[in-house]
Amino acid sequence: MANKAKVLYDFTAEPGNNELTVREGETITITNQGVGGGWIEAQNSRGEVGLVPEDYIELPGGGVNVGYVAPPIAAPVAAPTAAHVPDLSFFDAFAPPANNTARNQASNGNDPWSVWNQDATGGSSNNWAAQPEGTVTGKSAAPDPWGSNTQGHPQAYQGPGAEDDEWDDEWDDVKSNSESGEGGAIQRGGATGSSMKISLNNRFPGFSKSGPELFLLCKLPPKGKEKLTIYMGEVGPVWSYPEAQLDCVVADPKKGSKMYGLKSYIEYQVIPNTTNRPVNHRYKHFDWLYERLLDKFGSAIPIPSLPDKQVTGRFEEEFIKMRMERLQGWMTRMCRHPVVSNSDVFQLFLTFKDEKDWKTGKRKAEKDEGVGVMIFSSIEPEGPDLDPIEVEQKCEQFSRFTKAMDDGVKDLLNVGQEHWKRCTGPLPKEYQRIGKAFQNLSSVFTSSGYQGEATLTDAMNEAGKTYEEIAQMVAEQPRKDLHFLMETNNEYKGLLGCFPDTIGVHKAAIEKVKEGDRLVAASKITAQDKATMAKRVSTMSYALQAEMNHFHSNRIYDYNRVMQLYLEEQVKFYETIAEKLRQAHSQFTTM
Amino acid sequence: MANKAKVLYDFTAEPGNNELTVREGETITITNQGVGGGWIEAQNSRGEVGLVPEDYIELPGGGVNVGYVAPPIAAPVAAPTAAHVPDLSFFDAFAPPANNTARNQASNGNDPWSVWNQDATGGSSNNWAAQPEGTVTGKSAAPDPWGSNTQGHPQAYQGPGAEDDEWDDEWDDVKSNSESGEGGAIQRGGATGSSMKISLNNRFPGFSKSGPELFLLCKLPPKGKEKLTIYMGEVGPVWSYPEAQLDCVVADPKKGSKMYGLKSYIEYQVIPNTTNRPVNHRYKHFDWLYERLLDKFGSAIPIPSLPDKQVTGRFEEEFIKMRMERLQGWMTRMCRHPVVSNSDVFQLFLTFKDEKDWKTGKRKAEKDEGVGVMIFSSIEPEGPDLDPIEVEQKCEQFSRFTKAMDDGVKDLLNVGQEHWKRCTGPLPKEYQRIGKAFQNLSSVFTSSGYQGEATLTDAMNEAGKTYEEIAQMVAEQPRKDLHFLMETNNEYKGLLGCFPDTIGVHKAAIEKVKEGDRLVAASKITAQDKATMAKRVSTMSYALQAEMNHFHSNRIYDYNRVMQLYLEEQVKFYETIAEKLRQAHSQFTTM
Repeated sequence: MANKAKVLYDFTAEPGNNELTVREGETITITNQGVGGGWIEAQNSRGEVGLVPEDYIELPGGGVNVGYVAPPIAAPVAAPTAAHVPDLSFFDAFAPPANNTARNQASNGNDPWSVWNQDATGGSSNNWAAQPEGTVTGKSAAPDPWGSNTQGHPQAYQGPGAEDDEWDDEWDDVKSNSESGEGGAIQRGGATGSSMKISLNNRFPGFSKSGPELFLLCKLPPKGKEKLTIYMGEVGPVWSYPEAQLDCVVADPKKGSKMYGLKSYIEYQVIPNTTNRPVNHRYKHFDWLYERLLDKFGSAIPIPSLPDKQVTGRFEEEFIKMRMERLQGWMTRMCRHPVVSNSDVFQLFLTFKDEKDWKTGKRKAEKDEGVGVMIFSSIEPEGPDLDPIEVEQKCEQFSRFTKAMDDGVKDLLNVGQEHWKRCTGPLPKEYQRIGKAFQNLSSVFTSSGYQGEATLTDAMNEAGKTYEEIAQMVAEQPRKDLHFLMETNNEYKGLLGCFPDTIGVHKAAIEKVKEGDRLVAASKITAQDKATMAKRVSTMSYALQAEMNHFHSNRIYDYNRVMQLYLEEQVKFYETIAEKLRQAHSQFTTM
Repeated sequence: MANKAKVLYDFTAEPGNNELTVREGETITITNQGVGGGWIEAQNSRGEVGLVPEDYIELPGGGVNVGYVAPPIAAPVAAPTAAHVPDLSFFDAFAPPANNTARNQASNGNDPWSVWNQDATGGSSNNWAAQPEGTVTGKSAAPDPWGSNTQGHPQAYQGPGAEDDEWDDEWDDVKSNSESGEGGAIQRGGATGSSMKISLNNRFPGFSKSGPELFLLCKLPPKGKEKLTIYMGEVGPVWSYPEAQLDCVVADPKKGSKMYGLKSYIEYQVIPNTTNRPVNHRYKHFDWLYERLLDKFGSAIPIPSLPDKQVTGRFEEEFIKMRMERLQGWMTRMCRHPVVSNSDVFQLFLTFKDEKDWKTGKRKAEKDEGVGVMIFSSIEPEGPDLDPIEVEQKCEQFSRFTKAMDDGVKDLLNVGQEHWKRCTGPLPKEYQRIGKAFQNLSSVFTSSGYQGEATLTDAMNEAGKTYEEIAQMVAEQPRKDLHFLMETNNEYKGLLGCFPDTIGVHKAAIEKVKEGDRLVAASKITAQDKATMAKRVSTMSYALQAEMNHFHSNRIYDYNRVMQLYLEEQVKFYETIAEKLRQAHSQFTTM
């Protein structure tokens, strides 16, 4: 009777997951051993059928599947969840625990809990700390833009021989299950744990130790079809923008599930304005895209990180709405970027025809060699080479500006958050108390037994209700206006968090060029090499300037838009209150 | 050389008070011994002339004027000043320390510091505590409406043989000097101290031990010209109201001074609409009037106390303005009352022709016999005698209502005060920070070096300024609306604080009548007496009902008025903000 198995530990089924509750010592009949993911389908003595974790039973083969017992990720998961749970408001995004810059978010790829650890040690501001204002640090001190990364981008799904479906089902959904804190939160996804350990060391095998000199000195590959032209516009160097602005809509989040509903996830529809044909993507696909864009353009173009991964309540309506809103914001920003939106990988993401098309493109993108600083090799500036001094000045100016704006944005975010708290906390409570006090007096007056004060008591009662309504309005207002102001600034905080690395690449390059003479003297490089370096730094500078100009024009548009929206809503808010009070006022009469 | 005197203690002159600084052992020449108020004018060896306290020198007569050494009031004075000083905002009136009911204020007549002591022991609510809801307590338990008083109304100025000018110069101004905490705060006004000790036991010599039975059983005096008729109106018993409503304006406070500017005080102009002839009164004259009205009508009509005496900064503009405003409110309320406004003493206060006229009337009023419960003897109800049961029910109803309203009013005052604090504290700070954050971002943007963002930076700067203006408006608004809401409710708190005593008289009377049969049986009183008592309680009840109806009609008017005013200002406030924001909004443009 090979299909019988003995239950080793109690297991309580998670509702809605087609699981089967079993007790230690119980004997069950295995109905399907090929379920995968560490699960088997079994039937108990009462004829009930469902999934049971393999490691909870003694398989016909004999012996426990040790591979699954207490996988390493189980422990670390608990902490962040606990730390996170106390306040589930999606507004957490602005709260200190989430104040991590793009790079930090990036470096947490699919490792959500480390976010908290890092922030605990104030890691969020390290990017800026690494770049003393206005001083050009020596190479050694200059931050290696990828340094943090090498630690940071576990790509479980690149683990040797890892099948798509293998990682597909792990590392994202599974975790959230085991963190949902529900009854059946058991150790699943051991595979993730192991593959993650592997992934920590195999990023950028080509140039993990090196900075921009790779590009400065390398023998350029023959120009491929990839050409990034930079024109001279009114404001200086600019990317070449397409006639038609690419855009897309992220909509219609659907809960999908596979394997008897054990694996559940949210799938978003992405509809590009070019094809109008919707494609479905899960969060991790966005995350994959983000990784690709970061690899490919990160040293020339700040790639803002995706909205935080959330470790709990992924299916709470509000969270999904919020994540969609932010994915939309992120996609819109990417679409707006002439270089990013035009790239193969981005186009693939928006327009792949079918699963096969997607997987082919996916593998191709992951094999792309033109990543990292090599992106500069495809840049073609229309214009004379820039003098290294000028390059350095520009670089310094951008560094100062982005730092200053980063401070300004964070300041606004802090004020905004305090205001949000007040408007949703003490303030409405107070208006409510005022309202109650009026209504209370009104009912006392009603008990006077005196003739003809109905008008007053009614009016006071109305006034009281009005202040209760105002309390309500005050509490709800932030979601109508402050929310968008905060979202935009949060986006910019993310974006600005990328600049230190982008700018860092340039500073490092500039240093290299400065070293040039010494290196030539030491005949480490030829004079020709040095000339090449200068020329290439000039190219990098064109790119940086084009990028800054792109940033500025977007910034001007975004802040005009969000301020308009904010003030518009504020006006409505105060007008409505005034109108309500005018109403209340009209009910009183002095004889 | 009889006009030489030896200085016993150092005395430092108070600036601006024509005082003379002298040192112990110094010999001075007395230039005027008849200054009075415990002062003499003297000249020192350097020929400087000024005032010196008599008790600091050895007079020609030899020996110290012991009467003046360290008068008893000196000590208690210190405490309250200290307790009071920390917050000078006139808004203190609403703060817990000032939460004393009318009776408590009354019982502190010219003894401001005891207010704090009392409140420290929560004395403010004693009035209500004394009257358990709905139960009619036995005589012994029934509060003696004057009980607290006998302790409470030191009338220094009634001390045997006390001259007008004697008390005129003491008890009010002097105290405030010695409490002003300035350098020269020395023990003055010894006379006050002593005369106060006297005054504590000589109030209502006639019936200090007795309650309403005095009226219930006394042989009524022959009806004088004083007749208070009560008619049956639509709403029940009502006082007879004059055709023309008496009113008056309290205005034009002037700082006056006497005795070399040593005694300074504020004099207010009071202009009645009857004569349109202004008369001048100092706070203590109002206080004297209050005492007279309290004596005469207090057991039938709640006489609200005057605004708090303030022991420091009597000459600060804001305080004077505030006191005047409140004296105006008090006078208006008294004018509105048909019985009070029509009384001799009130008319005297408003229309006396000259100093002589005033003093004569003053003495007459102080000799008035028809005070206390005897007021009921001049009341003539048009209508049948009321059944004692009905009388009792009415009394209970009024007791319940006034208690309930007292609670409601205090609740509103508490909420209002919290709101006041928020609107003048954290809220504007926050709007300011928002404004600063916008302006800050604006100036960062200005540093971008990017062409053509002037529109945005100007607009953001404007928006920032707008929020700073809003901060300002928020901080100033309470004085424009909440202030009046608070003032009215504070007035009513005072008025309601008088009812327990007024109602107490009735409860006591009702008890007496209930005892009637027993007393007859014990032949303590005759059956005739009992009938008389019943009749007189009925009269008292007519008075109470008339008074309640007067209270209700005023209440309805006052609350309609103040709510209108409050809401009107609130509407303006929100409309102005909306308009300012609309302005700010119009400056942003999305290309």
